This record gives sequence, structure tokens and C-alpha cells, in this order.
Amino acid sequence: MRVLGVDPGLTRCGVGVVEGVAGRPLTMIGVGVVRTPADAELAQRLLAVETGIERWLDEHRPEFVAVERVFSQHNVRTVMGTAQASAVAMLCAARRGIPVALHTPSEVKAAVTGSGRADKAQVGAMVTRLLRLSAPPKPADAADALALAICHIWRAPAQNRLQQAVALHTAHATKGRTA
Amino acid sequence: MRVLGVDPGLTRCGVGVVEGVAGRPLTMIGVGVVRTPADAELAQRLLAVETGIERWLDEHRPEFVAVERVFSQHNVRTVMGTAQASAVAMLCAARRGIPVALHTPSEVKAAVTGSGRADKAQVGAMVTRLLRLSAPPKPADAADALALAICHIWRAPAQNRLQQAVALHTAHATKGRTA
Repeated sequence: MRVLGVDPGLTRCGVGVVEGVAGRPLTMIGVGVVRTPADAELAQRLLAVETGIERWLDEHRPEFVAVERVFSQHNVRTVMGTAQASAVAMLCAARRGIPVALHTPSEVKAAVTGSGRADKAQVGAMVTRLLRLSAPPKPADAADALALAICHIWRAPAQNRLQQAVALHTAHATKGRTA
Repeated sequence: MRVLGVDPGLTRCGVGVVEGVAGRPLTMIGVGVVRTPADAELAQRLLAVETGIERWLDEHRPEFVAVERVFSQHNVRTVMGTAQASAVAMLCAARRGIPVALHTPSEVKAAVTGSGRADKAQVGAMVTRLLRLSAPPKPADAADALALAICHIWRAPAQNRLQQAVALHTAHATKGRTA
């Protein structure tokens, strides 16, 4: 199972591809950050996020996309941009019929560290260990994207297969209506 | 000048196309609502919004897209979906090199009624009068989309032309980088 994890953001959108199955050692396929200039117009920043995500999908052909679920409890200004960047990532996946899963930050932390309240350093350390890397991926957004992908791989495989079938079906149905 | 106004939302996304210039009578070219099922997955709903917006852009070829600026003071659950639907609308426009303008609800109300605190009925009544319609467009999201387009047409034309040049340039530059 190959999963693209996306830690959404307008300034830095973390992306990481992990391959593997639950119960076996996992492999990191790629990790990086899609950046957009803070002084650009919002529409142009969203376009740049789309271009970046599309490139990752083209290059790595993931079977699932796992995106961090955005809450609005945090900083009001930041959260809107995060929600909008996550919309772009979800849209890119849905357009290709790739199922999208949303995981909360605490689900992701709990999956990789055992604690939903783990800090950035702890998440980075566990991602490094689980993927057998020589050093924690930087910036933290990149490590978080890998953690999202790992969290997703460790979910129930049967549920994933069902979601995959539904997403493919819906994407084809939507395409049919557009044409 | 032809403007597509978008009142973003996941359940009902208002869309309205208005043509005209400041100081002359305006013409409504089209009005409607893009709906997505509340029980569908978020990624699928965003895909359906995209399909709907693309259809409006294909059919009416607007020179500008005016989107309501989303604030997070309101209902927390609703506002995330609204922010995400607005991201899809902005993205669709940016991809085609169509400049996107964001207007706040009070700017729009002030533009069409003279008061930034006008209610829905007042906005609907003024949209009906300004576009010489026989009845207020329904639902309110559709009327709000037309009000957004009107508000945009009444902005400084010089500023609009500058923004148009920048958006076209950036869209072409982004395409170049993707290819």
C-alpha cells in the first residue's frame, strides 16, 4: 500500500510518501515540502499548492491520500489557509479517484508515538525510527506528512479497500457528468 | 465587464454572472446554485463543487471571479466547509488566469444597499431592482452571488485591469513550470 501524507499549509505544505503494510517494516518513498510565497495572492497560492500536489501524485502514484483534519480551535488566520490548502489536496486526489482519509493530529501522534499529546520532536524521532532514516526529516511539516501516511497504513486494511472502490466509482461518475 | 460572483458553500454554492460597467445599467447573464449532498465525503463534495464551477466558467467565460471573503467568527463547523468551497472556486479561476477578487459580506451589502448591515431581504430586493428582474433570485445564496458580481463591477476599473494582467501572467508562468 502506497500512501501520500499531506500536512496542509499555504506557506509550507508537508508531503511524504510511505509504502508498506501493517505489521511489516515501512519504506519511505519520498518526502518534501510544497512552498508558496506569503506575499502572493491567495488564488495564486492555491494554484501553486495544486501544481505541487499534482507533481507528487504524478511522480509517486499513491493509492491513498491521507490529509490532516483541520480544526478551527487554533489561530483563526492560519486555520483558514490550512483548511483551503487541505481542500486543494483533497480535490487533487478525488479528481484522480484516489480515496482521501482525514486523520486528526492526535490520531496521528497516537499512531506513531503511542500518545495523542506527543510533541513535534517525539513524532520526528518515531518517524525516523519507523522508516529507518538517518536523521529526522526537516522541516516538521515534512515529518508530520510521513507520520500521517504511517498512521493511515496502520488503519484497518479492509476499510481502506472499501473506500478505494467508492472513490474510484464516484470519480468516474463525476467525469461522466462533466463530459 | 463580465463577472462571476460566487457565494461559497458546500451544501449550496451560489453562482451568478453579471455583465456591465460602472455607471450603466447591469445585465444578469445567469444565476444558479451548485449543490452537493451533505452525506457525501468531503473530498467528493469538493470535487462536485469544482465540476459545477468549471461548468459555469465554460459556459459564461467571465473575465473576473468575485468570491465572498470567509471569516471564521461564525459557526465553526460551517466556516471550514465555506473556506474549502471558496478555495475550489479561487483555484478554478486561477487555473484559467482569471483574476479573483475577495469581497467581505459587509462590502457587498454596502455596495448594493448602501448599508453594510443590510439583511438578506434588502440585498435580494436591491439585486432584483439593479438587474431589472421580475422577482428576487432564490435561494438567498444565488442573490448573494449576483450581489458579489455587482459589487465587483462597481470597483475601480483601473485596478481590475491591472489585476487581470497579473493573473494571466502568473497562470501562464505556473503552466510553464508544470509542463
